[in-house]
Amino acid sequence: MDSIKIGIIGMGRIGKIHLQNLCTKIEGVEVTTVANPSKVGQDYATRFGVQNVSNNAEIIFDNPEIDAILICSPSDTHADYAIRAALAGKAIFCEKPIDMSLERAKEVVLKVKACDVPMMVAFNRRFDPDFNKVKIAVSEGKIGTVQSLHIISRDPEPPSIAYIKQSGGLFKDMTIHDLDMARFIMGCEVTEVYATGSCMIDPAIAEAGDIDTATLVLHFENGATAVIENSRKAAYGYDQRLEVFGSKGMLQINNPLMTNVTSANEYGSHSDVNLNFFIDRYATSYLLEMQDFVEALGHRKSMPVHGEDGIKAIVLAEAAYASFREKRPIKIG
Amino acid sequence: MDSIKIGIIGMGRIGKIHLQNLCTKIEGVEVTTVANPSKVGQDYATRFGVQNVSNNAEIIFDNPEIDAILICSPSDTHADYAIRAALAGKAIFCEKPIDMSLERAKEVVLKVKACDVPMMVAFNRRFDPDFNKVKIAVSEGKIGTVQSLHIISRDPEPPSIAYIKQSGGLFKDMTIHDLDMARFIMGCEVTEVYATGSCMIDPAIAEAGDIDTATLVLHFENGATAVIENSRKAAYGYDQRLEVFGSKGMLQINNPLMTNVTSANEYGSHSDVNLNFFIDRYATSYLLEMQDFVEALGHRKSMPVHGEDGIKAIVLAEAAYASFREKRPIKIG
Amino acid sequence: MDSIKIGIIGMGRIGKIHLQNLCTKIEGVEVTTVANPSKVGQDYATRFGVQNVSNNAEIIFDNPEIDAILICSPSDTHADYAIRAALAGKAIFCEKPIDMSLERAKEVVLKVKACDVPMMVAFNRRFDPDFNKVKIAVSEGKIGTVQSLHIISRDPEPPSIAYIKQSGGLFKDMTIHDLDMARFIMGCEVTEVYATGSCMIDPAIAEAGDIDTATLVLHFENGATAVIENSRKAAYGYDQRLEVFGSKGMLQINNPLMTNVTSANEYGSHSDVNLNFFIDRYATSYLLEMQDFVEALGHRKSMPVHGEDGIKAIVLAEAAYASFREKRPIKIG
Amino acid sequence: MDSIKIGIIGMGRIGKIHLQNLCTKIEGVEVTTVANPSKVGQDYATRFGVQNVSNNAEIIFDNPEIDAILICSPSDTHADYAIRAALAGKAIFCEKPIDMSLERAKEVVLKVKACDVPMMVAFNRRFDPDFNKVKIAVSEGKIGTVQSLHIISRDPEPPSIAYIKQSGGLFKDMTIHDLDMARFIMGCEVTEVYATGSCMIDPAIAEAGDIDTATLVLHFENGATAVIENSRKAAYGYDQRLEVFGSKGMLQINNPLMTNVTSANEYGSHSDVNLNFFIDRYATSYLLEMQDFVEALGHRKSMPVHGEDGIKAIVLAEAAYASFREKRPIKIG
Repeated sequence: MDSIKIGIIGMGRIGKIHLQNLCTKIEGVEVTTVANPSKVGQDYATRFGVQNVSNNAEIIFDNPEIDAILICSPSDTHADYAIRAALAGKAIFCEKPIDMSLERAKEVVLKVKACDVPMMVAFNRRFDPDFNKVKIAVSEGKIGTVQSLHIISRDPEPPSIAYIKQSGGLFKDMTIHDLDMARFIMGCEVTEVYATGSCMIDPAIAEAGDIDTATLVLHFENGATAVIENSRKAAYGYDQRLEVFGSKGMLQINNPLMTNVTSANEYGSHSDVNLNFFIDRYATSYLLEMQDFVEALGHRKSMPVHGEDGIKAIVLAEAAYASFREKRPIKIG
Repeated sequence: MDSIKIGIIGMGRIGKIHLQNLCTKIEGVEVTTVANPSKVGQDYATRFGVQNVSNNAEIIFDNPEIDAILICSPSDTHADYAIRAALAGKAIFCEKPIDMSLERAKEVVLKVKACDVPMMVAFNRRFDPDFNKVKIAVSEGKIGTVQSLHIISRDPEPPSIAYIKQSGGLFKDMTIHDLDMARFIMGCEVTEVYATGSCMIDPAIAEAGDIDTATLVLHFENGATAVIENSRKAAYGYDQRLEVFGSKGMLQINNPLMTNVTSANEYGSHSDVNLNFFIDRYATSYLLEMQDFVEALGHRKSMPVHGEDGIKAIVLAEAAYASFREKRPIKIG
Repeated sequence: MDSIKIGIIGMGRIGKIHLQNLCTKIEGVEVTTVANPSKVGQDYATRFGVQNVSNNAEIIFDNPEIDAILICSPSDTHADYAIRAALAGKAIFCEKPIDMSLERAKEVVLKVKACDVPMMVAFNRRFDPDFNKVKIAVSEGKIGTVQSLHIISRDPEPPSIAYIKQSGGLFKDMTIHDLDMARFIMGCEVTEVYATGSCMIDPAIAEAGDIDTATLVLHFENGATAVIENSRKAAYGYDQRLEVFGSKGMLQINNPLMTNVTSANEYGSHSDVNLNFFIDRYATSYLLEMQDFVEALGHRKSMPVHGEDGIKAIVLAEAAYASFREKRPIKIG
Repeated sequence: MDSIKIGIIGMGRIGKIHLQNLCTKIEGVEVTTVANPSKVGQDYATRFGVQNVSNNAEIIFDNPEIDAILICSPSDTHADYAIRAALAGKAIFCEKPIDMSLERAKEVVLKVKACDVPMMVAFNRRFDPDFNKVKIAVSEGKIGTVQSLHIISRDPEPPSIAYIKQSGGLFKDMTIHDLDMARFIMGCEVTEVYATGSCMIDPAIAEAGDIDTATLVLHFENGATAVIENSRKAAYGYDQRLEVFGSKGMLQINNPLMTNVTSANEYGSHSDVNLNFFIDRYATSYLLEMQDFVEALGHRKSMPVHGEDGIKAIVLAEAAYASFREKRPIKIG
């Protein structure tokens, strides 16, 4: 079968990862075009043998040869590009979020539906081998009936205040990944959200109108409960753990470490620090999500993550804000 | 200095543990009298060289030689015996709870104060080397400012329905230990409680009017949050973990295992099961709490756990019920 | 059935442990007599309700009521007391070694046989739950055919030079436990020993004519190999590990730690130190070996460890010396 | 500075890894030419933008533009190609072994010296982050004076009998990596080798004249001892562990696992299997060794691994055979 032709908009950190995976590790696909404002990003693409590079995304929409478009540009451009791509009849791989505004995100998903093009939202953590293994074990009933879920998600360092200001806030910027993960693992929908949070790390974050620490309790259709603990800073590094508790047992994801070296002395035994940050921690997940996207395209299968998943995560993040403001649990419509 | 003379009321499981520790492992103390309804318990005491055994607790209150009384009888007798002991001017070591009813418990503490006798409430987990080490590290600032606490407390098997019916319910029977532990680790008071729970293990527990699974979120004066997860049954055994997260790091208590043997085969590597139940898991804590009680008596020091601690744990458990019933966070007066 | 009457010779560290276990944790047995030169040891026995205490062991041999004798006196008295006990028709529980000299040890075992009294040599590590669990798993074929065994045995600190001088040397004093353990786990006999060693910790040990570090390779009848690594000093504490490798998998014993507390900070994660020394590390093994001894007596079963086991360990230790001196592997007769 | 021009001989499994790393992850270098008998390998190179591909290695030696040659062809061709490269004045990166025969390997190293070209032998494990971290910690004195080293090296499955027959035998094919690692960690030379081995996994290996299980004891100039345990088959997967014991502490390398997922049920807790085989386990080491090679070339620094290291590993492997045959320790000249 002909190789799938792909165009990428945006050669930032994440765009480069997708390009490299597509060019060196995934079969049956070809990146023919890359659009990026800066020359640096364009040269990077050239190095991987991309024929057409430009600072104008239009060359991608207009090119009849291109089957699918990867939207890796800044968040506030996702919606526009996704709609342009849909109208151009291209399959869409959209980095999250679809849009900061729930309304706008819904509009995009409706438009994509109307144009009947496949769209995948890039919740990459679902493809991480650890989280995926737990998801499969849970759905196979390995731990019986799920009774509770616990997600710990902490960054090694808070982002810049500039970033915080345009981030949409902790729940939409950070918790949103954990909200999607909770839905993914549980395999059913959230019925109620209780959220509490505060600013414990940097007063400048409070001045910017945001919080840096949060605890959420979610209720699910299946009667189970999930707890999410977030922090913008863990002194010991990127902390991404999960634990599912069921009637027959428990599944746990621990943090991968920089090395497998342990030392022992008169003070005890010492292990290495956690893997740096998401680029390292989730490297494999970026490859696997792209492989799944390409395979779904090639075999005309349903996308592994849908636009609706993007919408639902935003709905839950907004419910979290409401709960945090009103200091009470919020029902999900 | 003369050895401290002790009388024990109740030779049940816990009374025997205290007797054995006092007779074989603690210096400067002597158990002179034991009161227990059944002959079996009395014979057990005799075997350890206790001179006076009886089925009537009065011989303890009436004996001028006795310095301190251990109340290890059924919960519903604690209050009466504690007041009798106070009136008799004896120091009191009271197993928890002081009483199921908050009012009655308060009455006991007031009476004990009025009689000016020392009283210790037996929150033994505070004396467990693991929990105690974490408490000390936290108070020494080893992890900086505490931002959140997470306690997992699950039993290996639910108790009998008969027990459930007279237990006072999950929050007062089981969560109460974790509520005290949260106060102990944080070193300050709870300002708000949010509790949610359900019956996921055995419908008979629901029929008995109780729940078997719960999740709580506590807010503390210091701005930190604590999460407590309870279950009446963990398929993998007694699960007693704790994690404190602070600005400089994290402290974690894991479950002790039956053995230190690990095996590996084509399916991976396998470790042993958790230590059985509280008698095994907390064996050391019973010895250490008794040593501290005896030392506080001998050196006329303040008791390591006070009647007020018993009261506060009941107050929080009742707030948890209110939150659970009213489906909203409850402020603590 | 009547309780078994026991006499103990020697109220040193190990004698006290056996006394306490017999008096407080083992049913169907009574310590009626204790012989110990010093008053301190005698008082200790009295505290546990022992009726007859003396500074003269004769009162034990002469007492017709006594069924069994525990020999917990200094090593150089073991042989004499064992023979006296055998002639008096008492069952014998003998701390290791039977004697420093192979000839004398053999003489003891022959005499005991001639008198037809049961004798157990106290290789307590065989009764440790970890090592015992591995032994059972191996004999049940859980790891298939055993191909190799690896024992690491290191003390936290070297003993005094005075002790070293009368210890019989590293192989007889320290390695002897590991040689017995290797035989115990393998369930067959050693055919060849290669030993190498040196003095790396304290030159004073070399001046005393001993080594403090050793590596041994043993060959067994079943074709498997065992490696033993010894050191008189591990900076990180008492190190007692074992690993058995078989055709179907592997079994591993790790060191128990002081607490189950782990901390994490910017430098990584940190676990506690190992349990102190043999008294703590092997506490349970002392109880279980005594229970087995008492049960074997009560049910007239074969002793769990025989005099021959004591002999064989000495034979291997002497072969190790020969190999070390002659710098070549030594065949076992 | 101009980018370094590289030619690769051999596009097998290892050649492809080097090509991919050079093309996508290493700066300042360009693979201009690839020689490989089969079209498949040539096409792989083309895909990564290599301009000249051929089935004839001569085009590499003859090309004046090429600075360095990677020899990734079958082992029995290494020596010839290395000499050709030296005569052509090219820098050499040679996969191990230089040659099966010690004589021939020495001849190669002499010739390379005579031609004064840089040569690196690909002992990739030295560049693995785990082993490298231990090496650095040891040389910085983190564990004080090294007293012993223990290497466990077991394959998940034995290779084909055909491979065994031309492998040069266990010591030269498998142990050779561990012999080099022992020299690398110790930072000094071996003075004596004692080796023992047998065939415990597959009789066909014995029929092919080889062994599949071995235990070695090495003595080093610094007085320390090393134990190496090898097996052609570990039921639980690729097993590559190392432990260094010193006067101040201990360093340990454990096996990386497939995932960070742990499960717990009534039988205990379970972790995942080891990473597959060397391609996965040592993936990073291939990138880092190539980076170091390129950097050494670019900055005219001494090579991180020398021809002599290749020679010394063979010398030790041959001493191991002698010890195994003669059943005695063998001194190294």
